[in-house]
Amino acid sequence: MAKLDNGPARGTRDFLPAEVARREAVIAAIASSYARFGFRRIETPAIESLERLTSGQGGENEKLIYKILRRGLEAVEAGTDPDSLCDLALRYDLTVPLTRFYANNQGRLAMPFRALQIGPVWRAERPARGRYRQFTQCDIDILGEPSVLAECELMEASLTTLVALGIGPLAVRLNDRRLLRAIAEENGVPEERTASYFVTLDKVDKIGWAGVAAELAEKGFPAELALASERLLGSLSPTAAAAEVLSYLAGALPSLDESVLADLEETTRTLERLSSSLRGISYEIDLTIVRGMGYYTGQIFEIAHPESANSIAGGGRYDDLLARSLGQSVPACGFSIGFERVVDLAEVEQADLGVALLHGNEPPDVILVAAAALRQRGRPVALVPRRKSLGRQLDSLYDEGYRAFATLEDGTAGEVRPLSRQPS
Amino acid sequence: MAKLDNGPARGTRDFLPAEVARREAVIAAIASSYARFGFRRIETPAIESLERLTSGQGGENEKLIYKILRRGLEAVEAGTDPDSLCDLALRYDLTVPLTRFYANNQGRLAMPFRALQIGPVWRAERPARGRYRQFTQCDIDILGEPSVLAECELMEASLTTLVALGIGPLAVRLNDRRLLRAIAEENGVPEERTASYFVTLDKVDKIGWAGVAAELAEKGFPAELALASERLLGSLSPTAAAAEVLSYLAGALPSLDESVLADLEETTRTLERLSSSLRGISYEIDLTIVRGMGYYTGQIFEIAHPESANSIAGGGRYDDLLARSLGQSVPACGFSIGFERVVDLAEVEQADLGVALLHGNEPPDVILVAAAALRQRGRPVALVPRRKSLGRQLDSLYDEGYRAFATLEDGTAGEVRPLSRQPS
Repeated sequence: MAKLDNGPARGTRDFLPAEVARREAVIAAIASSYARFGFRRIETPAIESLERLTSGQGGENEKLIYKILRRGLEAVEAGTDPDSLCDLALRYDLTVPLTRFYANNQGRLAMPFRALQIGPVWRAERPARGRYRQFTQCDIDILGEPSVLAECELMEASLTTLVALGIGPLAVRLNDRRLLRAIAEENGVPEERTASYFVTLDKVDKIGWAGVAAELAEKGFPAELALASERLLGSLSPTAAAAEVLSYLAGALPSLDESVLADLEETTRTLERLSSSLRGISYEIDLTIVRGMGYYTGQIFEIAHPESANSIAGGGRYDDLLARSLGQSVPACGFSIGFERVVDLAEVEQADLGVALLHGNEPPDVILVAAAALRQRGRPVALVPRRKSLGRQLDSLYDEGYRAFATLEDGTAGEVRPLSRQPS
Repeated sequence: MAKLDNGPARGTRDFLPAEVARREAVIAAIASSYARFGFRRIETPAIESLERLTSGQGGENEKLIYKILRRGLEAVEAGTDPDSLCDLALRYDLTVPLTRFYANNQGRLAMPFRALQIGPVWRAERPARGRYRQFTQCDIDILGEPSVLAECELMEASLTTLVALGIGPLAVRLNDRRLLRAIAEENGVPEERTASYFVTLDKVDKIGWAGVAAELAEKGFPAELALASERLLGSLSPTAAAAEVLSYLAGALPSLDESVLADLEETTRTLERLSSSLRGISYEIDLTIVRGMGYYTGQIFEIAHPESANSIAGGGRYDDLLARSLGQSVPACGFSIGFERVVDLAEVEQADLGVALLHGNEPPDVILVAAAALRQRGRPVALVPRRKSLGRQLDSLYDEGYRAFATLEDGTAGEVRPLSRQPS
């Protein structure tokens, strides 16, 4: 075999022991925290049918799919579309598989169904710092709960989990797609242009109302839209408390279904309680939050952390998505935690590697019996061949993460001595 | 979107909550048991370069590779080999990635390096009962330990782990490729036909020496080979104790390097000790064990369980394999546990789902405050909307795995009552 580059495939990573230990500790903490709220892990395969993954649920991510070559192909005819040679593909998120999972297993799932998924997804992204082609997603979903209880519960479980991981301060931003639609409607924006309208509105903090007017004009919106938008939203301070925003909107959008504001009031009530019981939680209603995915139908939310440019978690209600695989609507509400970001931010205790037992050329079973006796006392024991320079060896054992060592003397493990870095 | 089949891709599985809980419990038990011996988890990506995966290390598995279409392909020319359209593929085992991982990261790994890998692999097998296209492998390897200490340690760690999972009785079968080569040589079998010779020899229990003679003749081996084989091995009882086998071989194969028998003696010494300290362990030297992979160079072993037709774990020494990616030999010895089989056999305690809190249309935060107060007492609490027939609902909560319930009364959770199956 010709000598190959031994690095992992471009954009993917090898994880060394300390990194796996950290990732696994975060996964265990997330799973055990959500389990206290009744969320249970499910798992779907990494591969799904290509047809499903390209059916439009995935938005922009569908352009980044890794497709798998059909098996048993003969030589190909001229002009063949390479995509037609594929039947399977790697999943690019956990939401599309969740909808299939639900449709496939609904008879065996208790309702409401609280699902926790933690697993790898693949996207053919242009590799960049902090952006990978295989990365772990962590999704939490409640299926079958139509009321805002689902949003409130998701908020409590997710904030509790992030705080348990030592991550904070956390700023929750809350909005509602129904509210966005009402604002757009009030200002005469046709439904299909709502997204484009909000992308521009989003920038008012940075470019001011004059900038918004210019960009809307450039996009071909009528001139009065900028004025109407400013009239409706310009008087709202970006630091207004949630209650203030809700009462203003009740007046400004008289045609808005009152359940929208009532639901937002419920969620802010839960957030108010959580901000006094958990450390470092703040929240606001932020009308500029849109979130990319087309499938949201109700409340949408994001959680920001000062050390992270993008939000570290986000989600919302998507009551119509399951109808596509099921033929019948199922109330659904979910949260996605940016796992890779959370791994960086979490406070995780380093596992104790235990005792390094230094041995020489003693017979194997003599070494193993001594190690087993040492292990009986409770700590892990790793066998390490004695090197010539004990001082340097103890230093490097300390660097690896061992905090105690013993030597094999007369066929039994001697005293367990604490390891520390030697003064060099 | 046209209505699609909602099942997982052919040969793959959805895992429901109880199944994931079982699998995760087995993974946690394996990881924590091996950690006590100094083994640490590593992780490599699911995708590797196609060139590496088809370089001959994978034997028959290379025929079962899922290949990934290169990105950004235009329409294809006539007669194109479909394989040439691919640059990446899904890994079919954890050994090829381990050799790449080691070559890529050796400067940062302490020696000997004890690696534990638990992760999915993919093979385009013909689906059958118990055979999947995505399944989990569990590999344990010691790199950098040239002596038989590695074999003994692997044996102790692996048997301890399986027994901790409640799996038994376990029958260890031990052999050595160097011994097989010596036997073949003694009988005049050329090296390249050794494997074929042992495939037939393997069947002596079933077809007798006459059957072996017939099959060897059919394969074109000289007639005297069957006689020589029977002379050498026929006097060895299949139930002979390990010490008896070793002393017989010392006489029968005078040209055999004495370290081979000395090493086997060491491993059997450890096995003898383990069979008296662990429950349900037996062992033997079994000259008919060959194992498929071409890369083994020394001792090879299998662990059998009475309820499993195939061995539930196996492995051996493969000192030359790493040289292929590294250009330099590294002593290596590994064990692979049949994870899917072990999940079926393991005794795993069912997790306590905790308390089901039955609620109605109370305001969300009232329900959540009651649940939080209940959770403070230590058990998980899941919210469940009250149904009309309490009796039937309690039955199905019991079936789901809840063992206690409470109802929401006047805005606070009432007494926590034990759940049992109602007499129907």
